[in-house]
Amino acid sequence: MLSIDINCDMGESFGNYRLGNDLRIFPYISSCNIACGYHAGDPLHMEQTIDRALAHQVQIGAHPSYPDLAGFGRRKMHIPANELRALLKYQIAALKGMVESRGGRLCYVKPHGALYNSLADNPEEGQALIDAMQEIDPELILMGLAGSGIEQQAAEANIPFVAEAFADRRYEDSGHLRSRSLEGAVIHDPQEAAEQVIALIKHHHVISYPGKQIPIRAQSLCIHGDNPQAVNILVAIDEALRQAGILKRAFSL
Amino acid sequence: MLSIDINCDMGESFGNYRLGNDLRIFPYISSCNIACGYHAGDPLHMEQTIDRALAHQVQIGAHPSYPDLAGFGRRKMHIPANELRALLKYQIAALKGMVESRGGRLCYVKPHGALYNSLADNPEEGQALIDAMQEIDPELILMGLAGSGIEQQAAEANIPFVAEAFADRRYEDSGHLRSRSLEGAVIHDPQEAAEQVIALIKHHHVISYPGKQIPIRAQSLCIHGDNPQAVNILVAIDEALRQAGILKRAFSL
Amino acid sequence: MLSIDINCDMGESFGNYRLGNDLRIFPYISSCNIACGYHAGDPLHMEQTIDRALAHQVQIGAHPSYPDLAGFGRRKMHIPANELRALLKYQIAALKGMVESRGGRLCYVKPHGALYNSLADNPEEGQALIDAMQEIDPELILMGLAGSGIEQQAAEANIPFVAEAFADRRYEDSGHLRSRSLEGAVIHDPQEAAEQVIALIKHHHVISYPGKQIPIRAQSLCIHGDNPQAVNILVAIDEALRQAGILKRAFSL
Amino acid sequence: MLSIDINCDMGESFGNYRLGNDLRIFPYISSCNIACGYHAGDPLHMEQTIDRALAHQVQIGAHPSYPDLAGFGRRKMHIPANELRALLKYQIAALKGMVESRGGRLCYVKPHGALYNSLADNPEEGQALIDAMQEIDPELILMGLAGSGIEQQAAEANIPFVAEAFADRRYEDSGHLRSRSLEGAVIHDPQEAAEQVIALIKHHHVISYPGKQIPIRAQSLCIHGDNPQAVNILVAIDEALRQAGILKRAFSL
Repeated sequence: MLSIDINCDMGESFGNYRLGNDLRIFPYISSCNIACGYHAGDPLHMEQTIDRALAHQVQIGAHPSYPDLAGFGRRKMHIPANELRALLKYQIAALKGMVESRGGRLCYVKPHGALYNSLADNPEEGQALIDAMQEIDPELILMGLAGSGIEQQAAEANIPFVAEAFADRRYEDSGHLRSRSLEGAVIHDPQEAAEQVIALIKHHHVISYPGKQIPIRAQSLCIHGDNPQAVNILVAIDEALRQAGILKRAFSL
Repeated sequence: MLSIDINCDMGESFGNYRLGNDLRIFPYISSCNIACGYHAGDPLHMEQTIDRALAHQVQIGAHPSYPDLAGFGRRKMHIPANELRALLKYQIAALKGMVESRGGRLCYVKPHGALYNSLADNPEEGQALIDAMQEIDPELILMGLAGSGIEQQAAEANIPFVAEAFADRRYEDSGHLRSRSLEGAVIHDPQEAAEQVIALIKHHHVISYPGKQIPIRAQSLCIHGDNPQAVNILVAIDEALRQAGILKRAFSL
Repeated sequence: MLSIDINCDMGESFGNYRLGNDLRIFPYISSCNIACGYHAGDPLHMEQTIDRALAHQVQIGAHPSYPDLAGFGRRKMHIPANELRALLKYQIAALKGMVESRGGRLCYVKPHGALYNSLADNPEEGQALIDAMQEIDPELILMGLAGSGIEQQAAEANIPFVAEAFADRRYEDSGHLRSRSLEGAVIHDPQEAAEQVIALIKHHHVISYPGKQIPIRAQSLCIHGDNPQAVNILVAIDEALRQAGILKRAFSL
Repeated sequence: MLSIDINCDMGESFGNYRLGNDLRIFPYISSCNIACGYHAGDPLHMEQTIDRALAHQVQIGAHPSYPDLAGFGRRKMHIPANELRALLKYQIAALKGMVESRGGRLCYVKPHGALYNSLADNPEEGQALIDAMQEIDPELILMGLAGSGIEQQAAEANIPFVAEAFADRRYEDSGHLRSRSLEGAVIHDPQEAAEQVIALIKHHHVISYPGKQIPIRAQSLCIHGDNPQAVNILVAIDEALRQAGILKRAFSL
């Protein structure tokens, strides 16, 4: 039976600020990427999010970032590799300890925002992340963009890797994500997102923005929690998976 | 044979800012309290300090704080107990994971600055700390002020406790530390500090600022790394311990 | 003709985080208290809020705070008076320069959150605020709680003062605000808030939570932007003022 | 009579952290660039530094930065122009108001660190800075690298510009500063720095690291306060200026 993992960024509230719709999204996902306090999140929201993930039996990953709360981790920062490695270890270790304190297990790491994008073509940063993960826990799985530089780098370093694709983002013919600064980058129509999901699972491709078939092999599909249609998209995906006889469950290697 | 533990706050540099004299102090201490990034320290300095502690076979403790870099954790903050517990878990977990990533073990927790002082008469904060430690690792030892409220609270919670006294601070007749805002609060004369150390170990008392014998039972003695005489005081203590036939070694329960 | 000023805290978004309902509230108020980056706000949101205030011809005040983004400035911090004075000067000067850069004028200062409350009985903090204002611009008006310690302190320092009362908060018999930790502290019913407003303007009193008439003289009335009923309350107040023939306009001394 | 301005970064301490040697450097400089809290500095140290500058009759400039205390403003950050402009306005306005509160005048702006370097070939950032300065105070002078892109951009925007060169840094044949990551980037020998200063003033050139004469026209020369030889270099420059009959005084346009 075919199966797929659906992941979403969670726990991105900070202090008095609320972000996302975690309570309504948790029932529909199988993995969650929890903010570690550097681009979003704070210890109290982290703990609350861990508890919710455990209650929903949702697999937990760390979502570390450049240290940039004001920029929500979306601004590229040029941080020396050695310092970046230490920053990542700090974030991953903090979340890991807090997850274990509630009886859970930290399974994977998915870098956030500008760092996520930067890993595609900055092998020094990729190495910093790989080193951080291996030093904190060699069993941690790295989640990254399907077909990007970090996927190959993880393979060479013999570190477990899960490739992800995006349910609610459009792709270019090159296989890159269409830039958020361009029209049509985000899919808002739940039905269209559901169709992209089914195509990804069954046929291992997406239809690019210009209309070409692009091959993508992914074990996890990401929904953006800040997409205003996130819950509707998740409901549509749920229904489409059911009809197609595809099981939604946390990835495993 | 009598023995004593000597501890010091370490790893308090931040980014471009240097603080303390860690390289010269490590050879003379048996336990170090490593800053966790909230009042001082950053991930790179934390890691560097962990490596130095391991190289010198110095026992490692976490030194968590209120979240106040600008105030160096020395300003009382009124944080709800639930949030304080989460803040402490985050800091302790981050350091613990980083220590283990270098092959070491986190042995104890010593709260910093205003939080340390506040624990003396805020049992709610004490409970937050005790809960944080038990959730992260029930074997963690709590280091606190000998004879203070937190010592009793730890006993009631059945959490291991190490009482500390200060080698380079003077006491009042009440047994409290003489306030830093008053003249004579800090001992700068290495010989005098060494005498206080010997009295604490052999006779379990100090001579208060007004001149009275105050009973204190401590398993660890603290030297302040920012005392400009820190290294000279440590040398004098070393010599005094040798002459008195007292062994310097990490506390154990 | 009777008139009244209606003020509201504005510009409290930060980076990717949105807070409040500024766009819908601006049409209904005559003064706005703009966050200065210490408890909320960032330079871009500050500038955007200034522009909106100017477009709506709403009078501008600075809303400085303790330095505590994670706690939204609602946690008491023990900051030495000299440092507090400098922190306040920094925030007020930053906002003042930005207001003037858009052709506006900074008219007043209303301290935020825990600082606002603390001023009621910490004359040292009150003096720090008064000094900060006089050093930055001696014409700045201080807005504070009607009948509190800071009102008298401002009078003694010969600094212009505007007393405010709350449209959407209930009072105790003592004249203090009912604590937010107690039931009934916040008024959610628009009609009830409107009645309190009319009573404050016409009869200079409120009816306390237990039901007593409490005399209060205020030149400005505050609505909390984070009250989910804020816009409805403002609409109800608007209508009540119209019916009572009371003019809504920025206070002037 | 020939004259020259000597400038230095000042006020870079933060909270409990001390940086630089301001007290010993102030007697030897004619202009100071005061940190604004984003890469270094805090309101209390800013005020203290302003008071020292006024006491030494040293001209005051703002030293704004990317928002990166942990990286000391030395890491390139990709900030949208509109947000960068607002960040710069905030910093400049805060310092300007604090300077005026002590009876002084803010004369110029010198960007810090990675921002300073980035301006050489990022005209969008240059425009953000120019806009910020013109909005806060059109009389503010921009201090930047002699011969760099920002000099030309300032000329086109009709904004007053002061070109600076470095007394204690070596240049490449291209006229760029030799990178700090390379050997020989910093001049530590006071005599050599003094000679570079005299050559810059009298002959408008430096001798590059490889040994070529490079033409540079500068009205201000910078000494790095964190150069461990800073005071000795300043003493040597002082003596060389005296012997050459060159007056040290704040630049004026």
